[in-house]
Amino acid sequence: MFSTDELSSLRWDPVAGAAEIIDQTLLPHTLRWCHLESLDDYCHAISAMQVRGAPLIGVTAAFGLAHAIAQDASEAGIRSASERLLATRPTAVNLRWALEQVGAAVAGLPEGERAAAAHDKAVALRAEDIANCEAVGAHGFELLRKLNPGDTLNLMTHCNAGWLATIQWGTALAPIYKAQEAGLPVHVWVSETRPRNQGTNLTAWELQRAGVPCTIVADNACGQLMRQGRVDAVIVGSDRTAANGDVCNKVGTYLKALAAAANDVPFFVALPESTIDWHCASGDEIPIEERDASELLSIAGRDAAGELREVNLAHQGSRGLNQAFDVTPAPLVRALITEHGSFEASVEGLGKLRAQLDAAR
Amino acid sequence: MFSTDELSSLRWDPVAGAAEIIDQTLLPHTLRWCHLESLDDYCHAISAMQVRGAPLIGVTAAFGLAHAIAQDASEAGIRSASERLLATRPTAVNLRWALEQVGAAVAGLPEGERAAAAHDKAVALRAEDIANCEAVGAHGFELLRKLNPGDTLNLMTHCNAGWLATIQWGTALAPIYKAQEAGLPVHVWVSETRPRNQGTNLTAWELQRAGVPCTIVADNACGQLMRQGRVDAVIVGSDRTAANGDVCNKVGTYLKALAAAANDVPFFVALPESTIDWHCASGDEIPIEERDASELLSIAGRDAAGELREVNLAHQGSRGLNQAFDVTPAPLVRALITEHGSFEASVEGLGKLRAQLDAAR
Repeated sequence: MFSTDELSSLRWDPVAGAAEIIDQTLLPHTLRWCHLESLDDYCHAISAMQVRGAPLIGVTAAFGLAHAIAQDASEAGIRSASERLLATRPTAVNLRWALEQVGAAVAGLPEGERAAAAHDKAVALRAEDIANCEAVGAHGFELLRKLNPGDTLNLMTHCNAGWLATIQWGTALAPIYKAQEAGLPVHVWVSETRPRNQGTNLTAWELQRAGVPCTIVADNACGQLMRQGRVDAVIVGSDRTAANGDVCNKVGTYLKALAAAANDVPFFVALPESTIDWHCASGDEIPIEERDASELLSIAGRDAAGELREVNLAHQGSRGLNQAFDVTPAPLVRALITEHGSFEASVEGLGKLRAQLDAAR
Repeated sequence: MFSTDELSSLRWDPVAGAAEIIDQTLLPHTLRWCHLESLDDYCHAISAMQVRGAPLIGVTAAFGLAHAIAQDASEAGIRSASERLLATRPTAVNLRWALEQVGAAVAGLPEGERAAAAHDKAVALRAEDIANCEAVGAHGFELLRKLNPGDTLNLMTHCNAGWLATIQWGTALAPIYKAQEAGLPVHVWVSETRPRNQGTNLTAWELQRAGVPCTIVADNACGQLMRQGRVDAVIVGSDRTAANGDVCNKVGTYLKALAAAANDVPFFVALPESTIDWHCASGDEIPIEERDASELLSIAGRDAAGELREVNLAHQGSRGLNQAFDVTPAPLVRALITEHGSFEASVEGLGKLRAQLDAAR
């Protein structure tokens, strides 16, 4: 189902010589592709969340650094561009990882060869991300098909960890697309994901586009649905995973994990290996990004005339606090699904993944 | 602080001979008082949620039935009006209770005396509600002051169970107003309470009006704040309480209770006795009201020009499910705070309240 670039969040336009992204801030109302033509464009795309989702942020940053190297391939130029890109979002570990990959690809090369090598690396990271996500989907599907609910498989997800958050397939949604592809009847509970409503804006939009039945619910309703036995499994992504299996993901993930544990609903986290921060011993070490309270106190939507319009929700002078992420402790996670297989969310579980990686390298 | 009718959600206008309510659907943007002048007005006020909150719904229904009896005091007329009022909201047990109180006050009276008796009963129920809420506040404050956090007391609430949900004081917010009155420094985390945003629209508005510092947060952030140790207690109201202590309240309450239990944060439920459904053995018996999905998929706010405007949030054709309430199992509740004192949320705890009530009658 992902054989063309139509269901893709970032593609290389060889004619324009620029990366092209879907401006996700306009979804679900407008589908607009934008060319990124300067380092400013790349930085803005990440910080303004035109692109979001750890894997997509990483690949976008890689193309951004490649673009910068084409302008200035000196050590100082590369360092300066890397620092600017790195500063756009503090939480996503993929950002650093992708920049390091491009940095390593050009290290030791003569300046004149660096631009081509950096671009090739960005293209390779994009392809690798697609392959990784498809592998996450295959491993996750193995877990889902074992749930054997008889009838339709009712899955719940949070935020957006689909093909809009990666390049294709997604992480949390990849196993769902695999189930769909295999002919298993699936239905997805999409939690709207306040305050930025990525569930309503992105996940519901991309699932509908891919033909997967889904229902939007308030984040508040997710506990109740599990208590009523209407959820066979919860599956979410991860922005950063600690070495002990703690998961830092979109704020509200933790509440779903608590409800899943209380109701014996399997809670799966799907993530590419690149999201694991091996230097981070536990989730408590992860700084929680605080964003502007206006994201909580106002919202954009289409008015009766079809115009996109921002409206204030709160009384003038109201104060808000807007934490973007939360930490879900590892014991609440049934399994971490990666491109290398599924692992227990624990020091031991991730140790097995580490050993597998070491053996393969 | 509640010595005048300014901080009140419903008052009797003797000149107009009509009850006057704040149209809460216009908050927090506009404060508008409306006279209720027909049974249709009363039914609409309840079903369209111009008034909401179990105690306020009950008192509004009582004035509505009194109004109807003034038009037609026959048995058939009373029964018909009661049925119409009862059908406006299926979950609130106070609605039935208040109608029964008015019904009992006129039973056996000659038809000519019924209107005055019904009106007097509605006035008495209003006064009683204020006294009950103040008593809830006093008992709750005893629990809060024992938390002794040293510095500012950080409380979290959900939905609106303040004076806008009752007549004055509130239930969940009454102990907070008592703390404020006693000079204890308090700060309230207000969860916005999707999908109808009663936290942002009502609780933040009424706390600001009463001079209590507060911060609006996404419902999704409430678990994280507890995990970070930034919440000394959670205090919410109840729309219906089962005889085993299970609490049916605004959707999302259950998730906060789970997070409180996981982080050893006291989770209090404040409720007038009238909210207890002694015939309901457990929360599982309580039907969960499903409201129109448009409440979830669109929202109203003020645009840049200051105009109130409804905007669509979701992609056309998106499907939503909008459950209005959830059930919080009794073991997650630290105490039920009533006008008669605080009790354990259990068959035994409520049995003690029952015995206390029986002894007093």
